[in-house]
Amino acid sequence: MSTFEPPDPAYEARVRASFARQAFMRTLGVEILHVAPGEVDLGLRHRPELTQQHGYFHAGATATIADTAAGYAALSLYPKGTGVLTTEFKISLLRPAEGGRLIARGRVIKPGRTLTVCRADVYGQNSGRDSHVATLLLSMICLEGLED
Amino acid sequence: MSTFEPPDPAYEARVRASFARQAFMRTLGVEILHVAPGEVDLGLRHRPELTQQHGYFHAGATATIADTAAGYAALSLYPKGTGVLTTEFKISLLRPAEGGRLIARGRVIKPGRTLTVCRADVYGQNSGRDSHVATLLLSMICLEGLED
Amino acid sequence: MSTFEPPDPAYEARVRASFARQAFMRTLGVEILHVAPGEVDLGLRHRPELTQQHGYFHAGATATIADTAAGYAALSLYPKGTGVLTTEFKISLLRPAEGGRLIARGRVIKPGRTLTVCRADVYGQNSGRDSHVATLLLSMICLEGLED
Amino acid sequence: MSTFEPPDPAYEARVRASFARQAFMRTLGVEILHVAPGEVDLGLRHRPELTQQHGYFHAGATATIADTAAGYAALSLYPKGTGVLTTEFKISLLRPAEGGRLIARGRVIKPGRTLTVCRADVYGQNSGRDSHVATLLLSMICLEGLED
Repeated sequence: MSTFEPPDPAYEARVRASFARQAFMRTLGVEILHVAPGEVDLGLRHRPELTQQHGYFHAGATATIADTAAGYAALSLYPKGTGVLTTEFKISLLRPAEGGRLIARGRVIKPGRTLTVCRADVYGQNSGRDSHVATLLLSMICLEGLED
Repeated sequence: MSTFEPPDPAYEARVRASFARQAFMRTLGVEILHVAPGEVDLGLRHRPELTQQHGYFHAGATATIADTAAGYAALSLYPKGTGVLTTEFKISLLRPAEGGRLIARGRVIKPGRTLTVCRADVYGQNSGRDSHVATLLLSMICLEGLED
Repeated sequence: MSTFEPPDPAYEARVRASFARQAFMRTLGVEILHVAPGEVDLGLRHRPELTQQHGYFHAGATATIADTAAGYAALSLYPKGTGVLTTEFKISLLRPAEGGRLIARGRVIKPGRTLTVCRADVYGQNSGRDSHVATLLLSMICLEGLED
Repeated sequence: MSTFEPPDPAYEARVRASFARQAFMRTLGVEILHVAPGEVDLGLRHRPELTQQHGYFHAGATATIADTAAGYAALSLYPKGTGVLTTEFKISLLRPAEGGRLIARGRVIKPGRTLTVCRADVYGQNSGRDSHVATLLLSMICLEGLED
């Protein structure tokens, strides 16, 4: 359950509108599963186009949905009229990313006026059983005048 | 100039063959620009399909070519009959990733029997001028019996 | 509550004996607060000797107890006769590290035969109120023949 | 050779004065070896008080001088009247940190008004031969009104 108070009551529409403008999300086939203050979950179904040489999801695809879920979790807590950019992230890949679908759960750890720190955990869904495939730590910077 | 002695003399063919099996590289449009022992450079031309909401390359695309360049730099120094997986990476995004093409230069910092540590630097090419858009540190694990 | 089964039933004595041999822990004044399978908590009381230029705990002191708590959490799940080394970690410093005491809670995220991934969260204790000052992700490597 | 123009001509005195106020540096025995715009080198002689259970420098000590070298490299490029705090760093430990002295070379990769990204490389000196024991990536935030 979220414990953050969003400064912009229209946070969900703002997250969804910004996400819709990220062409890379359509290229990969990422969909929004959940939006709450400080929380965004994304899903990505397995397709051969997303794989590395052993047939698993490419680490770049795993990192992309983790980064994006964490970034939009941060955006949900920023005031209207500001934009966000990822300044850095670290991802630990715990297991080969298998499964019919990846789910990335982005959560704000520490909101800030300038920097917000988030984590994301990525799970591979396989016939009802989830396996924890990656965990990420990320910093977002908030920029005024950069509308998201 | 590379200072590493590759244990597999056919390292370049092996890197190129493994890269060719990474479907995600075709999805994004990544190409190999350079292969040497402990060194791999990759290029990625700008296309609207790769962008985030402000028109820059998506951080996930930037991370993907950095991770892949660093990973193949590591693979070039592993013996025949082994495979590699990324165990973790950290990327610092220095500037918005603009330019007609991104170039990721992956280099081995410390080769190892089990773990190899690499870095990659990503540059945005804009009418002849390069800007440094990201730097990455990565660990690869070598697994016997996992042919790449 | 811990959900891991330690392969070495004497895991706690092993963690405490190895910790007692880390002279740097005595130099700083770190103490063990809790040991369970995959879990180690450490405490560090504020002393002027541990501070940076504004009087907070130095980021290096914060990183040291976070790294050590996470590393011993990993060691608690390794078999007898093996040793561990940190291969890498990333720490996000969420707030200035103030308080009468720092507490680092190290937890195993994913145990492995070779690599174990852990996190640690560091809290500053101030008259009963805890503030979350740092979060860390770490990889440990297990080496046979390197007794801890 | 440094390529940065420091906004504060008294950058070196400022770095040395701030360093002198970091009590933790005296506790460990760290000394300044080199200061230039965007560059700080630190040294730390081996003492039993700084070791982990196998007699190597503790990873926390290695991280501390790497973090501090990188942080002061950043401070050297900030205007007078501002202070800096580390917001996050990632360190890869390449080899056990042995040697009579550790040297950490901190360098600014990308200066910024708010965030500066630096790296530091740590070498172990052993009878004239240097070994590369660690590499670090770090973000510093500049805060006005927080005099360093």
